[in-house]
Amino acid sequence: MEQLNLVFAALADPTRRDLVARLACADATVGELAEPYDMSLQAVSKHLKVLEDAGLVTRGKDAQRRPVHLEAEVFDLMTKWIERYRQRAEERYQRLDAVLDELTNEQNQQRTDRKDAS
Amino acid sequence: MEQLNLVFAALADPTRRDLVARLACADATVGELAEPYDMSLQAVSKHLKVLEDAGLVTRGKDAQRRPVHLEAEVFDLMTKWIERYRQRAEERYQRLDAVLDELTNEQNQQRTDRKDAS
Repeated sequence: MEQLNLVFAALADPTRRDLVARLACADATVGELAEPYDMSLQAVSKHLKVLEDAGLVTRGKDAQRRPVHLEAEVFDLMTKWIERYRQRAEERYQRLDAVLDELTNEQNQQRTDRKDAS
Repeated sequence: MEQLNLVFAALADPTRRDLVARLACADATVGELAEPYDMSLQAVSKHLKVLEDAGLVTRGKDAQRRPVHLEAEVFDLMTKWIERYRQRAEERYQRLDAVLDELTNEQNQQRTDRKDAS
């Protein structure tokens, strides 16, 4: 899915993950977001554009401030994808465990049978 | 965190997400993995290398087959990161909702007071 490409790519950068982390606490302007970084406003704007293209943030309509807002529901896209395959992998390990348990039980049974026969 | 960069970047590609999805069901060799794609073995190996560098897959030691194995625990890195900020954003919305509720209650109270006074 197209958006999933953009969301994963957007979060592959530590500065963009930091921006998301800060926006989870409060909306902020580009100026406010740029403050702690040793980075130009343009560089921060570029990172925000990547987050915006992925749907992770939106910009407010207040022409002066245009505060940046986190769209946290987009996280669901990722967690749904991750959870589906994590679950599938877990089910597979559980099936493997069950098979191993059965093998161990059979071996124990054979040992007991042999002991009984001797 | 360095690995988080690699994991997010690895999953930003639809072919690599498809490889992960298939490896969640069963280990497979590069040849088996390449089969459904219109892609060279080299191209698939390149994608697998990206997943391997991110720690998402490992290669078996069987020299002939070297089956590819999904390391599903690496998903936890991502879900932990995502969940922390999703939760933070949700708490914030809940606080906003509480403030809005309070404002609405106050307004209703003022209306009632005015009606009582008139």
